[in-house]
Amino acid sequence: MATKGPKAALITDTTFRDAHQSLLATRMKTEHMIPIAEKHDEIGFYSMEMWGGATFDTCMRFCGDDPWERLRVIRRHLKKTKTQMLLRGQNIVGYRNYADDVLIEFIKKAVFNGMDIFRCFDALNDYRNLEVAIKTVIDEGAHAQGTICYAISPVHTVEYYVKLAKELESMGVHSIAIKDMAGIIAPYITYNIVKGMRDAGITVPIQIHCHYTSGMGAMAYMKGIEAGANIIDCAISPMSVQTSQPSIEVMCAAFEGTEYDPGLDLKPMIELADYWKNIRPLYAAFDLAQKYPDAGILVSQVPGGMMSNFLSQLQQANALHRLPEVLEEMPRVQEDFGWPPLVTPSSQIVGSQAVLNVLMGRYKMCTNEVKQYMRGYYGRPPAPINEEARKMIIGDEQPITCRPADMLEPELPKAKEMIAPVMEKEEDIISCAIYPQVAPKFLEERMSKKLNVDVELAKKSSEFYPV
Amino acid sequence: MATKGPKAALITDTTFRDAHQSLLATRMKTEHMIPIAEKHDEIGFYSMEMWGGATFDTCMRFCGDDPWERLRVIRRHLKKTKTQMLLRGQNIVGYRNYADDVLIEFIKKAVFNGMDIFRCFDALNDYRNLEVAIKTVIDEGAHAQGTICYAISPVHTVEYYVKLAKELESMGVHSIAIKDMAGIIAPYITYNIVKGMRDAGITVPIQIHCHYTSGMGAMAYMKGIEAGANIIDCAISPMSVQTSQPSIEVMCAAFEGTEYDPGLDLKPMIELADYWKNIRPLYAAFDLAQKYPDAGILVSQVPGGMMSNFLSQLQQANALHRLPEVLEEMPRVQEDFGWPPLVTPSSQIVGSQAVLNVLMGRYKMCTNEVKQYMRGYYGRPPAPINEEARKMIIGDEQPITCRPADMLEPELPKAKEMIAPVMEKEEDIISCAIYPQVAPKFLEERMSKKLNVDVELAKKSSEFYPV
Ligand SMILES: [Co+2]
Ligand SMILES: [Co+2]
Repeated sequence: MATKGPKAALITDTTFRDAHQSLLATRMKTEHMIPIAEKHDEIGFYSMEMWGGATFDTCMRFCGDDPWERLRVIRRHLKKTKTQMLLRGQNIVGYRNYADDVLIEFIKKAVFNGMDIFRCFDALNDYRNLEVAIKTVIDEGAHAQGTICYAISPVHTVEYYVKLAKELESMGVHSIAIKDMAGIIAPYITYNIVKGMRDAGITVPIQIHCHYTSGMGAMAYMKGIEAGANIIDCAISPMSVQTSQPSIEVMCAAFEGTEYDPGLDLKPMIELADYWKNIRPLYAAFDLAQKYPDAGILVSQVPGGMMSNFLSQLQQANALHRLPEVLEEMPRVQEDFGWPPLVTPSSQIVGSQAVLNVLMGRYKMCTNEVKQYMRGYYGRPPAPINEEARKMIIGDEQPITCRPADMLEPELPKAKEMIAPVMEKEEDIISCAIYPQVAPKFLEERMSKKLNVDVELAKKSSEFYPV
Repeated sequence: MATKGPKAALITDTTFRDAHQSLLATRMKTEHMIPIAEKHDEIGFYSMEMWGGATFDTCMRFCGDDPWERLRVIRRHLKKTKTQMLLRGQNIVGYRNYADDVLIEFIKKAVFNGMDIFRCFDALNDYRNLEVAIKTVIDEGAHAQGTICYAISPVHTVEYYVKLAKELESMGVHSIAIKDMAGIIAPYITYNIVKGMRDAGITVPIQIHCHYTSGMGAMAYMKGIEAGANIIDCAISPMSVQTSQPSIEVMCAAFEGTEYDPGLDLKPMIELADYWKNIRPLYAAFDLAQKYPDAGILVSQVPGGMMSNFLSQLQQANALHRLPEVLEEMPRVQEDFGWPPLVTPSSQIVGSQAVLNVLMGRYKMCTNEVKQYMRGYYGRPPAPINEEARKMIIGDEQPITCRPADMLEPELPKAKEMIAPVMEKEEDIISCAIYPQVAPKFLEERMSKKLNVDVELAKKSSEFYPV
C-alpha cells in the first residue's frame, strides 16, 4: 500500500479523453467507458478528463454517441472523482470562434450535467479569448483552470511563461496548466518554467500536460513535480505513451516512497490495465502508434501531425523532394506570424503557408485562414507580426484590435430555429450551434431510429394485441 | 550543435547487442550491422556494446555468423569508438561455469580481436566468480568493468550495494555498472544507490544499464546522472524502449543545455534512426514488443521472461488457475534461496522451484539445477540459505565453500581435440569449449559450404580451361 507523500503528485486520468483522442483518433465509444468507469473512480485520482477537445465532434460524427449523454452517464458512475474537460476557449469544442452566448450556455449546461474542472486554453495564449470562459466557469461555481500552451521559439522564455501565469492568476483561475500538446517539452525546461512561476509567487496548483511523442514526457513530469508542480496528466498503461500521456502506473511507481508519492495503490490498477488491454485492439484500425519514440521531432521540432500534413500537401503538388525547403521555411513563417505555438488551428495555418511559400513564392498565395489570421481574427500572437508580410497578405486592410469574439452576433437563436424539429433537450441547441452540419444530421438519425423502433414496437404490440 | 556539459552524461550505444537481444531474440545478423557501423562510429559515443551476452550463441545457432568474425569486422569499422561486451563472469558467454583456462583464453582472444571494455557480471553478485575475469582483463590491458546486479529484496539495501561497489573497487575495476536487467529500478532508488556510492568515496566511473520494460528507464538514468553516475546505456530510437534500453536521441535531448549535456549532435542520428527503422521489420517474426509499458511488473516485480515461464509450466500441468499461488510462493523461495537477483540462471532456478512447490508440495521435487545451487555450485547468494530448505533438497550433502570454478579441470584440451577436423583458427577452440554442441555443427557447416564452393569453383575452372 502506497503512502501519500507530503508533496504528493496528484494524478489526472486522461484515459477517457486525451488518451484515445491521441492514440485512436478519438473514436472511443461511451459503451466502452461505462463498464470500467466505477473502477477508475475507486483508484483515487485527482480528476478524470473525460470530455471536450475533439470528443464532442467525434461522438456525433463517428461514434453514434450523444456527447451530453456521455457526460451524464459517466458522471453518474463517478462517486468520488472530479470530472474534467478540455475547453478550447472561445472555440469551445470546435475549430472557430463562437459568439459569447454559445460559450456561456455551453459552460452552464456542462456544469449542470456534472462537469467540475474546465481546462481553458487558447492556441495563441491570447487570454482575451479566455476572458468569458474563465469568468463564466467561476460564476457557475466550477473549477477554472487557465492554460499556457508550450512552444519553442525565441519569445517563449521562462520570463514570458511567468508573465502568462501572472495574467491567468489575475483572472482568478483556480489552477494553471502547462500544456505541451506537441510532446516536445524537455525535463529541465519544465523544471525551470515551474520553478520560475513558484519563485515569482504563483501559488495556485500547477498541472502539467505532456504527450510522450518524443519520449520525454515522464522525465518532464518528474522534473516539473520536483520544481513544485502538483498535478500530472497520465493514462492507464495500455492507453499510455507514444502520442498519448505517460502511464499512471509508471509515474506512481517512479514516485513511490518519496515525498512526491501519489499514495495510490498499484494493485487495483492491474484490473484497469487488463480491461483496456482488451478494448484497445477493438480500435486497431485507428491505432497508428509506433513501438518507439519519434526522435525526428526532437530535431525538426515540428509536431508529428504537421509533418504528415507537409508530406501530403507536397505529394499533391508532386514536390515531395522539396520537404527540406519547407522545413527551412517554417521558422521564417513562424517568425513573420509572431511565433504562435503550433497547435490547432495555428499549426495548420503556419504549416500550409510554409508549403505555399516554397511552391509559389513567399506570400504569393495565401489561404483564407491566413488572411483572417493577419486580420486579427484569431487573436494576438506572442510577438508582433511582421508588417511587411502582413501587407503582402492583406494589403492595406486594417486588422481588428479588439477581442475577436466582440465582432460576433449571438448565434443561439439561429441554432434553435434550425434544430427545432429534432430537438429533445436544450443541450441539442448548443451542439447545433457548434456543429451546424454534424449535429442536425446526428439528431435526425437519432430521431428516425427512435421512430423506427416505435413503429416496430407498435407493430409488435399489434401482433400481440390484434385490434 | 550540442555543447558538452561539465558533468556530461556519456552514452554507450547498445544497438548492436542488447537492443536486438532484448527486442528481436538476439537474431540480428552481422550483415545488417556493417553498413551502418561507421555512421555509429562518427556520433561520438563513449562505447558501442556489440558483443557478448546471448549474441555469441545465437550468432552460430541462428544467424550463420562466426562471432569472432563479427567482432573483427565491426572493429575494423570503428575508428574512434570503444568496443564493449557483456561477459557473464565465469559463465563467459554461456550458461554454466567454465574452467579458468577457457575464460582466460577467451578474454585474451577477445582483446586480441579488438575488445576494449569488458562488463563482467555474476548473477549472484558473488565476486569470487569475477576474480579471474577481472584480473585477466586488467592483465591484458583492457578496461575491466565490475557489475552490480540490481534486485528488490530485504537484503538489497543501499548499504549492501555500496559494500559491493567497494569490493569491486578493491579488485581494481576501472568502472562499475549498475545492471537493472529486469527493468524495475525506480528513479529515486537509482539516485540513492549512486549517491550512496559517491558519498562512500567510490571514485571510478559509474555506468547505469536499464531496460525500459516497466517504463521507468529514462527517469532512472536522469536521477542516476544527477547523483553522479557518468555513463548510460541507450539504443538508437527505432531499437529502443520496451524490453530494450532508453533511446539515445531522447536522453540527449533531455539533457541538452544542462550541465549533463552529452554534447552529441542530434542531426546525424536521424540517418541512423532511418536505417534501423528499415532493418527492424526484417525481424518482425521475433519482434514481440508491445506499444506500451508492462505495468504488471511494477506490482509483481517478476521479470517478463519469468512470468511467461510460469504460464507455460502451469499450462503443461493443466494448472493455469494456480498462478496466484505461484506468485505468492515466489518470494518465499527467493528468501529460502538467500535472495538471489532474478537474472539468468537464478531466475529460472527460483522460478521453476516456485511452480514445483505449488504443484507438488514444498521442495518435494527439485530440478538438478536447484540441487546444484544448494550444493554451492552457482556461488554464494546475498543472504544465507535457509538450512531447513537446503536439507529438504540435498539431505546431508555438504555444500562446497570454495569458488565453484576451483572444482573444474581445464577444458581447452578436450575442445581442441574435438574441433581439430574443422578448426580454422584458434578462436574456434574457445567457441567449441563454450558451446560443444552448437559450435562444431556451425564449423562443420561452414567447412562444407566452403568445400562446395571450392568444388563449384573447380568445376567452373575446368569449364573455362578444359584439360
Ligand atoms: Co493533449
Ligand atoms: Co541488458
